[in-house]
Amino acid sequence: MKAIVVHPPKPGVEYMELKEPVRHGNGMVRVKILENGICGSDREIVKGRLTTARPPPGKDWLVLGHEAIGVVEDSADPRFKPGDLVMPINRRSYNGKCLNCLVGRPDFCEAEEYVEAGMVGMDGFMVEYYYDDPKYLVKVPENIKDIAILAQPLSDLEKSIEEILTIQRRFVWTCDDATYNCRRAIVFGTGATGTLFALLLKTYGFEVYMANRREPLENEAAIAEEAGLIYYNYTKESIDKLKKIGFDLVIDTTGSSASLIRDEIEILKPNGVLGLFGFPSEGNAVIPFDVFQRFIYKANVIVGLINGQKPHFQLALSHLAQWKAIWPGVTKRLITKIISVNDKKEVINALNEKEKGEIKVKIKWE
Amino acid sequence: MKAIVVHPPKPGVEYMELKEPVRHGNGMVRVKILENGICGSDREIVKGRLTTARPPPGKDWLVLGHEAIGVVEDSADPRFKPGDLVMPINRRSYNGKCLNCLVGRPDFCEAEEYVEAGMVGMDGFMVEYYYDDPKYLVKVPENIKDIAILAQPLSDLEKSIEEILTIQRRFVWTCDDATYNCRRAIVFGTGATGTLFALLLKTYGFEVYMANRREPLENEAAIAEEAGLIYYNYTKESIDKLKKIGFDLVIDTTGSSASLIRDEIEILKPNGVLGLFGFPSEGNAVIPFDVFQRFIYKANVIVGLINGQKPHFQLALSHLAQWKAIWPGVTKRLITKIISVNDKKEVINALNEKEKGEIKVKIKWE
Amino acid sequence: MKAIVVHPPKPGVEYMELKEPVRHGNGMVRVKILENGICGSDREIVKGRLTTARPPPGKDWLVLGHEAIGVVEDSADPRFKPGDLVMPINRRSYNGKCLNCLVGRPDFCEAEEYVEAGMVGMDGFMVEYYYDDPKYLVKVPENIKDIAILAQPLSDLEKSIEEILTIQRRFVWTCDDATYNCRRAIVFGTGATGTLFALLLKTYGFEVYMANRREPLENEAAIAEEAGLIYYNYTKESIDKLKKIGFDLVIDTTGSSASLIRDEIEILKPNGVLGLFGFPSEGNAVIPFDVFQRFIYKANVIVGLINGQKPHFQLALSHLAQWKAIWPGVTKRLITKIISVNDKKEVINALNEKEKGEIKVKIKWE
Amino acid sequence: MKAIVVHPPKPGVEYMELKEPVRHGNGMVRVKILENGICGSDREIVKGRLTTARPPPGKDWLVLGHEAIGVVEDSADPRFKPGDLVMPINRRSYNGKCLNCLVGRPDFCEAEEYVEAGMVGMDGFMVEYYYDDPKYLVKVPENIKDIAILAQPLSDLEKSIEEILTIQRRFVWTCDDATYNCRRAIVFGTGATGTLFALLLKTYGFEVYMANRREPLENEAAIAEEAGLIYYNYTKESIDKLKKIGFDLVIDTTGSSASLIRDEIEILKPNGVLGLFGFPSEGNAVIPFDVFQRFIYKANVIVGLINGQKPHFQLALSHLAQWKAIWPGVTKRLITKIISVNDKKEVINALNEKEKGEIKVKIKWE
Repeated sequence: MKAIVVHPPKPGVEYMELKEPVRHGNGMVRVKILENGICGSDREIVKGRLTTARPPPGKDWLVLGHEAIGVVEDSADPRFKPGDLVMPINRRSYNGKCLNCLVGRPDFCEAEEYVEAGMVGMDGFMVEYYYDDPKYLVKVPENIKDIAILAQPLSDLEKSIEEILTIQRRFVWTCDDATYNCRRAIVFGTGATGTLFALLLKTYGFEVYMANRREPLENEAAIAEEAGLIYYNYTKESIDKLKKIGFDLVIDTTGSSASLIRDEIEILKPNGVLGLFGFPSEGNAVIPFDVFQRFIYKANVIVGLINGQKPHFQLALSHLAQWKAIWPGVTKRLITKIISVNDKKEVINALNEKEKGEIKVKIKWE
Repeated sequence: MKAIVVHPPKPGVEYMELKEPVRHGNGMVRVKILENGICGSDREIVKGRLTTARPPPGKDWLVLGHEAIGVVEDSADPRFKPGDLVMPINRRSYNGKCLNCLVGRPDFCEAEEYVEAGMVGMDGFMVEYYYDDPKYLVKVPENIKDIAILAQPLSDLEKSIEEILTIQRRFVWTCDDATYNCRRAIVFGTGATGTLFALLLKTYGFEVYMANRREPLENEAAIAEEAGLIYYNYTKESIDKLKKIGFDLVIDTTGSSASLIRDEIEILKPNGVLGLFGFPSEGNAVIPFDVFQRFIYKANVIVGLINGQKPHFQLALSHLAQWKAIWPGVTKRLITKIISVNDKKEVINALNEKEKGEIKVKIKWE
Repeated sequence: MKAIVVHPPKPGVEYMELKEPVRHGNGMVRVKILENGICGSDREIVKGRLTTARPPPGKDWLVLGHEAIGVVEDSADPRFKPGDLVMPINRRSYNGKCLNCLVGRPDFCEAEEYVEAGMVGMDGFMVEYYYDDPKYLVKVPENIKDIAILAQPLSDLEKSIEEILTIQRRFVWTCDDATYNCRRAIVFGTGATGTLFALLLKTYGFEVYMANRREPLENEAAIAEEAGLIYYNYTKESIDKLKKIGFDLVIDTTGSSASLIRDEIEILKPNGVLGLFGFPSEGNAVIPFDVFQRFIYKANVIVGLINGQKPHFQLALSHLAQWKAIWPGVTKRLITKIISVNDKKEVINALNEKEKGEIKVKIKWE
Repeated sequence: MKAIVVHPPKPGVEYMELKEPVRHGNGMVRVKILENGICGSDREIVKGRLTTARPPPGKDWLVLGHEAIGVVEDSADPRFKPGDLVMPINRRSYNGKCLNCLVGRPDFCEAEEYVEAGMVGMDGFMVEYYYDDPKYLVKVPENIKDIAILAQPLSDLEKSIEEILTIQRRFVWTCDDATYNCRRAIVFGTGATGTLFALLLKTYGFEVYMANRREPLENEAAIAEEAGLIYYNYTKESIDKLKKIGFDLVIDTTGSSASLIRDEIEILKPNGVLGLFGFPSEGNAVIPFDVFQRFIYKANVIVGLINGQKPHFQLALSHLAQWKAIWPGVTKRLITKIISVNDKKEVINALNEKEKGEIKVKIKWE
């Protein structure tokens, strides 16, 4: 069967005809792929820049793809039946001795005992069909099929919020009406992650700023308008204005220079949290001692945020369904392009370069 | 303006023309009522049987109604503008010295420093229009206007689940995939509360039984089918079968005889919780010493569940939006009747007697 | 070597010369027993009344004893060296598939995959020496050797408090100074468990009542005096007085009639918890519907409390050290008798009958 | 009466005869001071370097001192009686509108609505006697009078651990025996704070390193030996060795250059936390982008740690009592000097300069 493969750590991507079907875990469920999402990490792998990427043991190639929707074709597990729509979990434990892996949370594996589909030691989901372990499949409601692919990137953010809310149980962080309506958050970066994070924080009741270094594109402006987000074009000057506004929660999804982190620390209010989600790709953060003094006085926290697991996929699907009902326009704007898998040239192109204004690009299998 | 009033502790209900508009808290937002829901407690008040019901100080009558959707007509608070759909919170703190009231949780008031709209010392929402405090108003998304009235009863259940999940943090209650998919719950009672509780537990990932003493009505069967709930017709005999199945969570919404509680304890699995939501209205629970021995061995818990607050109203609206997207048929079946407020006779009738098969009845103001 | 053995489910107890040393888990540490504590469950086994008691597979006898202090004689684990004082954990997982067992909490095992030393399928510690797994050994500070035996029964109560505090995270349960100093607790029963529970709650900052059906013995009065506990002689009449006082936490350690449980429910304040620790041995609790109504209105909880694990043993040793420093008289009064293992007749006697005024009896190996 | 006063922001310290007694809150309890501890912040104030220091409104002087033990001389509150030993809480709310202040946690005040005795807008405790509010007094057990002064600095660390354990509830951080015995911590700095933090982490079950840039003094070596701490003399070279060892918890108490923070981040293991307690007083942390990449991959956290409240004072007294019982030598070594208040010259001297090897210096009133 057809698959899209890479050869990490070497750059490049190609279509390949597999001789043996891909099989994960007990392989009890046969899944036909309907569509894949493309994400920034896919492009990093294609460019040979993701240093953690590696094929499964004994091979020099890797099926790409960690975002997928499929349909069950055959199942030896009674909980799944042919026709069920499913989404596979991408990070998985492969031996289970670490306590967090044992309780289903390889996102917190301390022993490097995990693999990641299409990235780290495990074939991904850009393939015609494959066999999977039901433990790692989540059911997708038929009625949100059009946007469900977003549940994979959104799952990481669901997990991030879960972490942040746990961290903030150190004190009373809810308002005098027990909601988060008095709390102000800012998300740096307006790509898929930044946009989804902003929408999710809005859903949790925060006042939400989306920040980028430029004016919003038409699509971004429309999303902000419908969902009640505040778009903010920051510049070196206006960071000072952000300090004055003050934020209870700052999220970095930019993956650009580490130097931004100092600014992000300084705009935190007392008890505020800085969540680092995007991997900075250059530069240094130069943080003077007095910035740390205020950080301590203000009881601030910085936390590194990665990877959602099964409960977060389920929650992400719930939120997508909710958004479809309350923000129908927004949900239509989140998928910015759909490419047929048969349109090989355009697929390869999309796996190499991000288009201007892209939020999420899908590959459709047919 | 027109209102529906009662005279607790005396029975009876009537339409009354108010001379002065009802005003709560700072009264900054004028709300025109669009619709009210009718609930079992309303009928208990009308029948003069709810002993805790009382008019506000200095009056012998009380505007009825704790479930309402309205539209903002005028607002002195910038967060609300004319045309916004809103839902008022029914339980409120009236002086705020108790710590839980101070942090917005009068549902856990220890000092009896609260009032309840349409029930305890505070006029309710069955009125043409009134003035409210924005602290106690929740915005309702336009797109779920048809079912949003359910957010009030659902808010109590959102709060109940929050409590149960906190109680179960004593140990690992999630499954080996970190979800609740291996957990089994049963809800006794299939009225509005029972049905909404079953749907909510399903949303949280539980396998869910709905139990009643009879075969399901057509509407109930259709809801169970679409949402994947298991309808269970229990009898004295089949309680033993339920013991054998075993439940991680048992919810009582029946409000019938206390004698059922013994059975509900006995069907708990180790680490299981019994949540009492419906107020038993007759009988005794006779619980032998060896039932308590097993209760202790199994580290079981019984918890009394009441009243949601603002965050739970918001969560309830989120879940209703989600359900509308994934279970469109179910959400249509939850409102079983709509009566015009002008159809006085039928309104009075509905405030006196529950119809067979009723889930939620709405009064529409026009 | 010498051991004290029982033959559950048959009654009786005897000294036996073992041919093979007892060996648990990896057996890396050889422990010479210094002393054992005697507890009510030991006597229930001796009398053939503990229905869950059973020998290890393939034997018809069981070494008794789940409370012990020993000294390391030989160790293949670098964390333990000859001369170290140790206390063994009594409940253990034997196969580890249950998630709670995997994370070291077989006290919450849902799969009956545990054994209990000297009680359920595992030889106990009333033996000259034996071989143990370091995972189940806790180090005992030399300076509290005289009272350290109490850490085993106290560990169960440490775990109980941990559970209760988790359950009460549903709301603000701390006072306006963030302590528990405004909270009132009552412990029914004044045996070893009741006394230790009362001391522990006092340590956590509660106002504490110790309740029994009679006037305090001299020893009990002296302990209450030094530790600032309120001794309460309750009778049918004065339960009403207790209702009027109202308690945030009620603990039952009596193990007598289940009928007391109704009273214990009724004296709870709003948000209060009833913890059942003692296994009721007779009678029924007859609980009328209106008692449950108030239970629900007051958001009360009943929880079954059992069995501490390693972290609770460590915490228990910490508290005993603290008590020795601040309540030197109390700690001397908690060990009411020490019997030499060579005084066989008196040991057998103590294993059959509780003496009046007994708190903790120790058997000393020499 | 006699008092030791400062004039922030001006440097200097002097003895002053007060005309009016100091009175805090309702002033219901008259407290005669028995002893004060001297801490680094006192010296910063004396040197005019603590920029947040300020006298109470309407005065240009401030009674110094935030560590004190006193005895009740007179009390209008029945919970305190003449002769009771007490310790005052130093940070207090002064108006109580902030939610955290309302629930007794001004350590998390978000509205700058607090004062700090002897530091920020509130007279301190270096005074013959004064009147206090019972809400802010903690009882001190007679038997640990000699070391109880350490409860004030220790309270900050009790609060810090509480925060860290809450933060780490994001996943399973306990070991396979449910303790923290498999976790490794390092404390940078070996002053009073560093030493107490190391002892406290040991008490919680961690393997603990104490790190400084030099060989241990005799006193430090003896403390480490008795309490089982590992003293580590780090240098630029050996930071690499620390990276290889890897730490689950890193605590900075040095208050020296911010440049150390980069190293402290790099030695964190996956899921590890860096707690910043000491205020860095110079330099920058220069943190390259790839250090942040690993920080994110490892799900690390940095948290600013400050100020304990009443529950933490109570816990600190409990731990001191425990330590006195199990580490009698250590507790004797923690108080390195006692100066009579009548020895004015030496008091002034001690308030200006830290002696080599100092852990805690006390001023004794007589």
